Amino acid sequence: MTKEHIAEAFKGIQDYICQQLEQADGKAQFQEDLWHREEGGGGRSRILKDGNTLEKGGVGFSAVHGKTPEKILQALSLPPSDFFATGVSIVLHPNNPHVPIIHMNIRYFEMSNGTYWFGGGIDLTPHYVVKEDAQFFHQKLKVHCDTYHPEFYGTFKRWADDYFYIPHRNETRGIGGIFFDHLNESKYGLTKEDIFSFVKATGMLFTELYVPLMKKNSALAFTAVEKQWQKIRRGRYVEFNLVYDKGTKFGLDTNGRTESILMSLPPEASWEYAFQTQTGSKEEATLAQLKKGIDWTNERT
Amino acid sequence: MTKEHIAEAFKGIQDYICQQLEQADGKAQFQEDLWHREEGGGGRSRILKDGNTLEKGGVGFSAVHGKTPEKILQALSLPPSDFFATGVSIVLHPNNPHVPIIHMNIRYFEMSNGTYWFGGGIDLTPHYVVKEDAQFFHQKLKVHCDTYHPEFYGTFKRWADDYFYIPHRNETRGIGGIFFDHLNESKYGLTKEDIFSFVKATGMLFTELYVPLMKKNSALAFTAVEKQWQKIRRGRYVEFNLVYDKGTKFGLDTNGRTESILMSLPPEASWEYAFQTQTGSKEEATLAQLKKGIDWTNERT
Repeated sequence: MTKEHIAEAFKGIQDYICQQLEQADGKAQFQEDLWHREEGGGGRSRILKDGNTLEKGGVGFSAVHGKTPEKILQALSLPPSDFFATGVSIVLHPNNPHVPIIHMNIRYFEMSNGTYWFGGGIDLTPHYVVKEDAQFFHQKLKVHCDTYHPEFYGTFKRWADDYFYIPHRNETRGIGGIFFDHLNESKYGLTKEDIFSFVKATGMLFTELYVPLMKKNSALAFTAVEKQWQKIRRGRYVEFNLVYDKGTKFGLDTNGRTESILMSLPPEASWEYAFQTQTGSKEEATLAQLKKGIDWTNERT
Repeated sequence: MTKEHIAEAFKGIQDYICQQLEQADGKAQFQEDLWHREEGGGGRSRILKDGNTLEKGGVGFSAVHGKTPEKILQALSLPPSDFFATGVSIVLHPNNPHVPIIHMNIRYFEMSNGTYWFGGGIDLTPHYVVKEDAQFFHQKLKVHCDTYHPEFYGTFKRWADDYFYIPHRNETRGIGGIFFDHLNESKYGLTKEDIFSFVKATGMLFTELYVPLMKKNSALAFTAVEKQWQKIRRGRYVEFNLVYDKGTKFGLDTNGRTESILMSLPPEASWEYAFQTQTGSKEEATLAQLKKGIDWTNERT
């Protein structure tokens, strides 16, 4: 398949997800911004705000090309070349603290020398960890991954634990999910076509994972204390995205469209000095579960 | 003078500033946290919140020592050695959007091979740029700098413009101030004693610069629109500190005390997608003045 084919498929996934999310929210409509990149290509940002459930969210598509950034060439010890990159990126911040924040990304990168890879990930950041939701999320991801390769779920789940981690807080961002990068036919004995199928299916799985969690949890009442806790957790989300997230850093370093890169940031966040959870509280229980290595697929309720 | 002497002087400056700020605020009291660093040394964090004027603020002192971090050795091409570092760091977030955010830092660093330097800076981040306040601030800084060296103000003002800059927003963080680093007797024909005097006087100037701006502007009424704009400007402050600030990065990279490093973050911040100021608004006028190279000392009201 050609890179144009991949980009078209990604655009279709963006369309599908936006339509499903609007329907699930019942109020918010995506606002679309088309943008062009001076050095080549552009994107289609779709943002919504003030929905019934979704307070702020973005579903971005981009397909950019040009000279491969120096940083990538250095990291991979490659001579100057042209690149093409396309992807879909999502972050959704719900209003109700009982509804988790979610992130999804699928991406394809190729260079004029023939090198290519796919990458992606989905991870869930509940403000309050709910065991049955975490199990639902990870079990679905495992079934999805197992369809493509028996090692995918285990490997990509550990990768997500390591990637979505905030060292200075000694916390994972949320309950993880899957993360993969530099995926091509050099590993796992899969063809490019197989990997593309896996990546597309990862994108198409998104609403199947999130919409049930949206619907179930947005019905729950919440208190001012829970809302404040949500803002503190969103502060951690900001810390992860601005300090550690490679996509954000790469975007800002390479003069990407700032508003599209930072659409991941929450509508409101708080920082309280040395915030302490109450002993025996739900907040304390959540923190105890923001750790690497929890096997949610085997956990029993 | 010895490093102990410098640290004691810095502690005294912390005491003086905290006492002056409590008096000026009239309500908030600093809460003190003493902390120890496993690898050597520690600090004295002082935090206040919910004052009459100061919504959240921190005045930190630290004096740490140990093996020089690999990153510093590499940057300076030095062999392994021990280091000692001491400093005072301040960030204050006022409640009233008409009162500016302020930051100050003075620091001293020495290595067992005899290398040493001083660094520091003061910069002002008004949510709304007020010309007479910016002039007051920069004129005071210029008079202060001129006492020590005729080149200080011009050089350190440009350094602040370059340092307190957010490339992905093409905005300065605020109206700048002064910034200096690696200052020792190798430049400007000053002795170590002279430089220490300059650094101490910079610390002692802090309340003389900020308290008048606190008092004058906290008397002004503000609207919900102005409060929301303040949260957006605080979002930019977060972006600068987490993405670009070297002190923050160094602290997080070297396993510093997270709550002391991130005491600079605001109590509440907002991100709105593609926020646009109204034509002819005060917000638009402020953005137009968040640029490098404005000579506030020569500007006329």
